[in-house]
Amino acid sequence: MSDIIVIGAGVIGLSAALRLQQAGHSVTIIAKDFPTPFEAADKRALINYTSQWGGAHNRWVLPTNPAEQREHEFSLTTYRHMEATLSEFPEAGITFMKGIEYFENPPPVHRDLTVEKALQLGLEEFKLLEKKDFPDDKVVWGCEYKTWCVNPMVYCSFLLRRLHILGGKAMAMELRNLNEAFLVKAVPGVKTVVNCSGQGFNDPAVFPTRGQTCLVANSCPATVTRQNADGSWSFCVPRNFHGGTVIGGTKEPDNWDLEPSPETRARLLSSFAATYPPIVADGPLQPLGDIVGRRPTRRGGIRLEREEIAADEIKGLQDNEARSIVHAYGLGGRGFELSWGVAEEVFELVKQRVSSRL
Amino acid sequence: MSDIIVIGAGVIGLSAALRLQQAGHSVTIIAKDFPTPFEAADKRALINYTSQWGGAHNRWVLPTNPAEQREHEFSLTTYRHMEATLSEFPEAGITFMKGIEYFENPPPVHRDLTVEKALQLGLEEFKLLEKKDFPDDKVVWGCEYKTWCVNPMVYCSFLLRRLHILGGKAMAMELRNLNEAFLVKAVPGVKTVVNCSGQGFNDPAVFPTRGQTCLVANSCPATVTRQNADGSWSFCVPRNFHGGTVIGGTKEPDNWDLEPSPETRARLLSSFAATYPPIVADGPLQPLGDIVGRRPTRRGGIRLEREEIAADEIKGLQDNEARSIVHAYGLGGRGFELSWGVAEEVFELVKQRVSSRL
Repeated sequence: MSDIIVIGAGVIGLSAALRLQQAGHSVTIIAKDFPTPFEAADKRALINYTSQWGGAHNRWVLPTNPAEQREHEFSLTTYRHMEATLSEFPEAGITFMKGIEYFENPPPVHRDLTVEKALQLGLEEFKLLEKKDFPDDKVVWGCEYKTWCVNPMVYCSFLLRRLHILGGKAMAMELRNLNEAFLVKAVPGVKTVVNCSGQGFNDPAVFPTRGQTCLVANSCPATVTRQNADGSWSFCVPRNFHGGTVIGGTKEPDNWDLEPSPETRARLLSSFAATYPPIVADGPLQPLGDIVGRRPTRRGGIRLEREEIAADEIKGLQDNEARSIVHAYGLGGRGFELSWGVAEEVFELVKQRVSSRL
Repeated sequence: MSDIIVIGAGVIGLSAALRLQQAGHSVTIIAKDFPTPFEAADKRALINYTSQWGGAHNRWVLPTNPAEQREHEFSLTTYRHMEATLSEFPEAGITFMKGIEYFENPPPVHRDLTVEKALQLGLEEFKLLEKKDFPDDKVVWGCEYKTWCVNPMVYCSFLLRRLHILGGKAMAMELRNLNEAFLVKAVPGVKTVVNCSGQGFNDPAVFPTRGQTCLVANSCPATVTRQNADGSWSFCVPRNFHGGTVIGGTKEPDNWDLEPSPETRARLLSSFAATYPPIVADGPLQPLGDIVGRRPTRRGGIRLEREEIAADEIKGLQDNEARSIVHAYGLGGRGFELSWGVAEEVFELVKQRVSSRL
């Protein structure tokens, strides 16, 4: 099988690289940023490397159209992959636990959800909550199901180590242009590049969605999400393996502010503690630090497609053979949730190209 | 308890920081380099950060004098700590397995070792090997015992995460001078600094001991060490959790060469495969890369002592109170093996100072 370069070492790049390696390709990841023990990471320097900071859990998004249905399939694939990974590799940083959802203003797809429909959608251990289970009167709909959380630093490092032990390479390098990947001397003869850069490289549809969360030392037995009537969200994502719990959070399209807001922190913590009192059962919230990251979002949603590049478009190429770029970016805040579904699709797109050349 | 700055995030700095934190101090680690998933690390940039590359296992050094006896106590403390850590935190990156030793030219302390003496020294599951167990006729003495190995990247990241979740801080920063640590604005009022820099800061007794090893993808059920008649060593250190197995190795005092030698690689691999054929039972050795690191060694051995610094020696200090530096560096290749014993001693040295000030 051929040599492939994957650009980006976020959760999408790492997952796609492993999937391609599993199919027999020699894979090299080229990335500016790699997983780091987040406690020592310079948060400002890594503000665009969001996998590091991800609230890394699975929250089911109920599909209402074909695009959402496709993403739902990706999340199911990822769910099954997380189950299999945990059973084989307990050190991967994955835990399964209860996922709880509260809505003040549920959309019709939630209001109409029955246990039967939920099970058809693949939601394990699904249960509709009753009024007595709600934290307050503003909540009018709620449910719980079995889901997964990861400690992103532990999980991403695990993926990178696994890639390496199976013969994959990693190079820390900043590319100015996608085509530059075809000219890297250390990996000659590359015909396919997979673009998991997040930022897309000059894609005008990409923009950052700022997220501010607060990391607390408290552990939490569930991942909890609350939608407020004003459209804001309050949630927690436990990160076991000494990663604390992330309390969130904001979703601010095109906000470039690097600094955490102390007011936002105070609001996030108090509203979450009110929504899910078990988190303060053993004592008050112990904040360890604020986290600001920029989710790489894209108008029109995920870009997941193959692009053919004529040889004469790549300056400096030594032959006349066309090249391919498989794009996989623009997942916003859903990178971890959809990662293995996207990786599977990347594999199909790479394979199509190989077949078409036979 | 007081605020303490620990300089260095190698295995000694991380262990000392955790020990002091456990005693109630607020600890901040200041370091130039932090644990990284080594597959992505720039080996040349990190050549002086040896915990990253460490052949991280416990090999008993039989004591023949008081200094060696002290180190033996440190290694026993570390052994017990590794057992306790593994039972509580399976994700720490620690595994226990058989340690095997072969000697072509054993010193008297080995020749005279009986099972009874070994058990008195604390060597669990100790067994003298018979001639029929030796790999060839050059080996004249051998033994096996139960011991531990760690995947250094997984283990050091675990220590850092644990420090953080318990409230510790980490700052990436390069100090020019030890006293600079007393002037860091982010951690005001520090009276005690712990110097786990490895390099010592202008200690003329410190020199680097170059080590070249080769990382292979093969797994190995034991950590094996062979002393050759010419004084060279052949060994393997398994690094489970997708870290492969390190085959070594050289010990070259004051050799500053950054480049791995292909001849050395070839010699290490072939001599180890001959010494321990089980490693090639499932197929030939699969090299993943050469590793060159510089063990921070010190003439006269470990420096582990408290130094008092008069206030007027620290330029820029705002008060007249003397400060203390606890030095803990110069462990050569034995950092992981002695880490928890050294951490315990650091704690005692910090405490002495506090007591003397009461």
